[in-house]
Amino acid sequence: MSKVVAEIVVVPFTGGPGGLSRYVASVENTLRSFDLQVMLTPMGTILEGELDEVLQALRAAHEIPFSMGAMRVATSIRIDDRRDRELTISGKIRSVEEKM
Amino acid sequence: MSKVVAEIVVVPFTGGPGGLSRYVASVENTLRSFDLQVMLTPMGTILEGELDEVLQALRAAHEIPFSMGAMRVATSIRIDDRRDRELTISGKIRSVEEKM
Amino acid sequence: MSKVVAEIVVVPFTGGPGGLSRYVASVENTLRSFDLQVMLTPMGTILEGELDEVLQALRAAHEIPFSMGAMRVATSIRIDDRRDRELTISGKIRSVEEKM
Amino acid sequence: MSKVVAEIVVVPFTGGPGGLSRYVASVENTLRSFDLQVMLTPMGTILEGELDEVLQALRAAHEIPFSMGAMRVATSIRIDDRRDRELTISGKIRSVEEKM
Repeated sequence: MSKVVAEIVVVPFTGGPGGLSRYVASVENTLRSFDLQVMLTPMGTILEGELDEVLQALRAAHEIPFSMGAMRVATSIRIDDRRDRELTISGKIRSVEEKM
Repeated sequence: MSKVVAEIVVVPFTGGPGGLSRYVASVENTLRSFDLQVMLTPMGTILEGELDEVLQALRAAHEIPFSMGAMRVATSIRIDDRRDRELTISGKIRSVEEKM
Repeated sequence: MSKVVAEIVVVPFTGGPGGLSRYVASVENTLRSFDLQVMLTPMGTILEGELDEVLQALRAAHEIPFSMGAMRVATSIRIDDRRDRELTISGKIRSVEEKM
Repeated sequence: MSKVVAEIVVVPFTGGPGGLSRYVASVENTLRSFDLQVMLTPMGTILEGELDEVLQALRAAHEIPFSMGAMRVATSIRIDDRRDRELTISGKIRSVEEKM
């Protein structure tokens, strides 16, 4: 098992006017139903947990905008996986702040 | 089932000198063992196929640099999924070139 | 001066129906007006050239969808810059293919 | 003038052992010397400000790891630019949280 920190971004193309935050909120609620640490940022959502759980969450999140009517969805994920010591959301931030 | 076009980038941190192309070549060979169209670019690899097959290929590719000695791997994927008509590598390129 | 290989993706949110290829084609034409090698892929455009020229091209390309009526544009770039030896589009591909 | 929210990630390849947080901390200090709102996340740094100031910050940040000895740097930025109403770090978060 491998614990990772990852950033996921789900972007719907709705073919209609209006913002995307309704979709993002629904994606966010879906991500929070998994066994993961979840941190919302202005540019995506950061996840911490087992890699396979992260990928299941990605798969589920990607379907949300389609279920809300979008016809095209661009989903991306960036995974940071380190196996010599464990990465966490708080540990990564702390490690940088200590050196600033 | 949903056919997508996606771009995958696997970046190993090796803690040693030398280029990354040895790792990229091995990732590429792994990606080609799946039931996917595969197109190598200078900045990643583009895949075309069923979304679940793409995610299985991502999972396998992410392990390759670890199996070659890397202790940290940053893997990212960007998925373009359109359900009102089918996306393909060749169709996406053609669609832009026709309008240029 | 530093020569880089970069990938740029410009995504317009148009609030209307229809594909994005009309916008992508116009972005592509703009990128080709710079002193850069340009390679269209199904997931973006790869550029080769001086870093500052690449950033000027990015700045210009980002404006194109706004000039065509989009109200929101998501532009991203990923820059690969290596200073111990020169990176090129063809060199990066060749380097991987030799090891496959 | 156009105010944007953007995410920047600067990844050095050092050819040596050890973590990357020393480099990230120095990049972070550089980003904070610009006229921008800056928010450190576990997967990058989020900026809010004028687009041209953001691009100047990107240009400066990209040089930092080279000045610290790295021979290769992968820098990426993702820009969210909306011109019908102003995007801010706090506004984007609030907009999603209200709908959750």
